[in-house]
Amino acid sequence: MRIALMGYGTVGTSFHKLIDTKGKMLKEKYGIVPQLVAICDRSGCMINENGISYQTAYQTKTKFGKINVNSNELQPADVIRELSLDLMVETTTANFKTGEPALSHIRESMRNKVHVITTNKAPLALRMPALLEEASLNGVELLYSGTVGGGTPFISFGDKVLKGNSLLGIRGILNGTTNYILSRVIDENLTMNEALSEAKKLGIAEADPTLDLNGFDSAAKLVILINHLLNERVTINDIKISGINENMPNMQNFETVKLIASSYPEPKVSMEIVKRGSPMDVGGTYNVLEFNVEELGKVYLTGRGAGGQETAASIIRDMVELKERLMQKSYKI
Amino acid sequence: MRIALMGYGTVGTSFHKLIDTKGKMLKEKYGIVPQLVAICDRSGCMINENGISYQTAYQTKTKFGKINVNSNELQPADVIRELSLDLMVETTTANFKTGEPALSHIRESMRNKVHVITTNKAPLALRMPALLEEASLNGVELLYSGTVGGGTPFISFGDKVLKGNSLLGIRGILNGTTNYILSRVIDENLTMNEALSEAKKLGIAEADPTLDLNGFDSAAKLVILINHLLNERVTINDIKISGINENMPNMQNFETVKLIASSYPEPKVSMEIVKRGSPMDVGGTYNVLEFNVEELGKVYLTGRGAGGQETAASIIRDMVELKERLMQKSYKI
Repeated sequence: MRIALMGYGTVGTSFHKLIDTKGKMLKEKYGIVPQLVAICDRSGCMINENGISYQTAYQTKTKFGKINVNSNELQPADVIRELSLDLMVETTTANFKTGEPALSHIRESMRNKVHVITTNKAPLALRMPALLEEASLNGVELLYSGTVGGGTPFISFGDKVLKGNSLLGIRGILNGTTNYILSRVIDENLTMNEALSEAKKLGIAEADPTLDLNGFDSAAKLVILINHLLNERVTINDIKISGINENMPNMQNFETVKLIASSYPEPKVSMEIVKRGSPMDVGGTYNVLEFNVEELGKVYLTGRGAGGQETAASIIRDMVELKERLMQKSYKI
Repeated sequence: MRIALMGYGTVGTSFHKLIDTKGKMLKEKYGIVPQLVAICDRSGCMINENGISYQTAYQTKTKFGKINVNSNELQPADVIRELSLDLMVETTTANFKTGEPALSHIRESMRNKVHVITTNKAPLALRMPALLEEASLNGVELLYSGTVGGGTPFISFGDKVLKGNSLLGIRGILNGTTNYILSRVIDENLTMNEALSEAKKLGIAEADPTLDLNGFDSAAKLVILINHLLNERVTINDIKISGINENMPNMQNFETVKLIASSYPEPKVSMEIVKRGSPMDVGGTYNVLEFNVEELGKVYLTGRGAGGQETAASIIRDMVELKERLMQKSYKI
C-alpha cells in the first residue's frame, strides 16, 4: 500500500511510528504492507520510493523543524499525481474558513483515484456532501473515523450495532475541553478564565482553544455525524453555532449546563440545561452521544475524546477497514 | 422454522403476537417462515402441526387461564423429542435455585439437535459454562440476547464494536428497579419501603421484586456478560452478591450510591459509592455498562432496561442472527 502522509505534527508522527512498529502485525493479520513514500508539511515533501523510516523523518523534523531539507521542488499535488499512490493520509491543521490545504489534498487525491483517510475535520465540516459524492463518482473510499470520538466509537456503534434500527436523531457533548471548563465553572465556582488556565496547565486545552470555545469543533463533528449516521446532507453553514460563555441559562439545583450539539429539532450547538444524574450529565473531559432509536428508545455512548495517539490509532483502523472494503470490491491494492 | 415456545406469560405472548404480525417481513427480508407448532405452560402443551395462531392461543389462555385445554398428555420433553423442531424458545419464569423447568427444556433441546433461544436468565446464571459446551458439542446454537440489556445492546456492542480490541473488565448498573429505588432514597429522602411502593405503583417494580432487591437479577446478568464478553467461565456461585438495603456506605455531598455489578477485582454485586457527574451516575431506571478497553480507556453504554415487549423483540433479533449463522454454516433449516 503506497501511502503519502500530509502533515507531520502530533498525529502524523504518531501514525508514522505506529506503521513502523506495527508493520509486522498489519502484514500478518490483515495482509497490509504499508509503504510511506512521501511525507509533506508546510516546507514541502520528503520522498523515498522505497519507503521512509520513522527514524529518518522524525530526526529530520526535530533537527531542522521541517521535513523537506533536500529542497526538492515537489509539492503535495505533484506527489499525489506522480507517485502512483494507493492512499493519502490527511493530518494537517484544521482551517474552518477555507478547509485548506486539506481540501485540495483530498480533492486532488480523489481525482487521481487515490483513497483518502482524513483526521482533519475542516474539509468535511465545509464540504462533506460534495466530498462524499466525489468519492463515489471517482470510485474511491473516503474514511474519517478519527475526526469524531476517536476514543469513543460513535460512528462504528451507529454502523454496526444500530444497523436495521431507525435512528431518529442525535445529540451530545462532542468537545472534552469545553465540558471540562463548564464543569469547573459550575461545580467549583471558577470564572471561565480561571477554568481555562487550569485546563491549559493540565494539557486539556490547547494553546489556542478558540475553535473549542466558540463551538466550531463541536459543530464540525456534528456535521460529520449527521451526514454519516442520519444520511442528511448538511455542512457547517447549516448549523446554528454558539460556544460557551458566562451568560448561562438559569439553572435550578438539580440541573447543570452543557455545550450540546444536536441534530434536532434543528441542527445546532449551544449551551443547554441538563438534568443532573441524567445520562447527558457527564463531567470532566467526557464526550457523550445520545442515539434516539425508534426501536430502543434513547441509548447513550460515553467515553473520552481523542488525543494525538488515539487519532493516529484510528488511521490504522481505517486502513484495515479500507483493505476490507477493497477486498469486497475485489479491487487490487 | 418449526418452533416450540415454552412459557406463555408476558414475554411468550408478546413474542407470539410479533411473529404473527411480522411474519411477512420475516419472510421477505430474512427468508424466515416461523411456524409455532407447540406452546407449553404449567398445564401442558397446545399442539398444532400446521402452526398455532396468536388468536387461538391467546384466547384460550385468557379464557381458561391455561394453554392445554384438550388434556393431551404431551409434556415439554415429548414435544422437544417428537415434533421435529428447529428451534425451542424458552420464556418460563426464572428459578435461581434449580434453573427449572428451563434447564431441562434447554438440555433436552440441545440433545435433540434443536437450536435454543432463551430469555430466561436462570439456567445461564447457574450453568452457562456447561451449556455453552453442550451447545458446541451438539452442534446447535444457543442465543440469549434478551437476558441482558434487551433495551441496551451491551452484548452486540461488545461483539461488533470492540472486536479486535482487548476488553480488560466490565462493571455497571444492570437492574433498573433497584437503580430507581436507590435514586429516590438518596435524592428524595424516601425510605426503602416508600420508594419500593412508589416503584410498584409506577409499574417499575414487579409484584415480587425479591430477585431485583437481593441482587440476584444483577448477578445473573453479570454471569452472562462475563462468560460472553470476557470468555471467563463463571456461574452465579462465583459471584459475591449483596443487594440494596438501608445500611449505605457513607457518602459525601458529591457522591451517590449505586448497586454495581463488576467483573473485577473479583466478580461481585454490591452497593458502591459513585462520583456524581461520572458516567456511572445515571438515575431513574437506566442501566449502564462500563467497558474497560485497553486501546480506548473506559467506554460506557447507557440505556433502558427491557420490558416484556423489548424482550420479545430480542427473540426476533436472535432468530435473524440464528438464520445468518446457519446460512454461514450452510445448514438447512
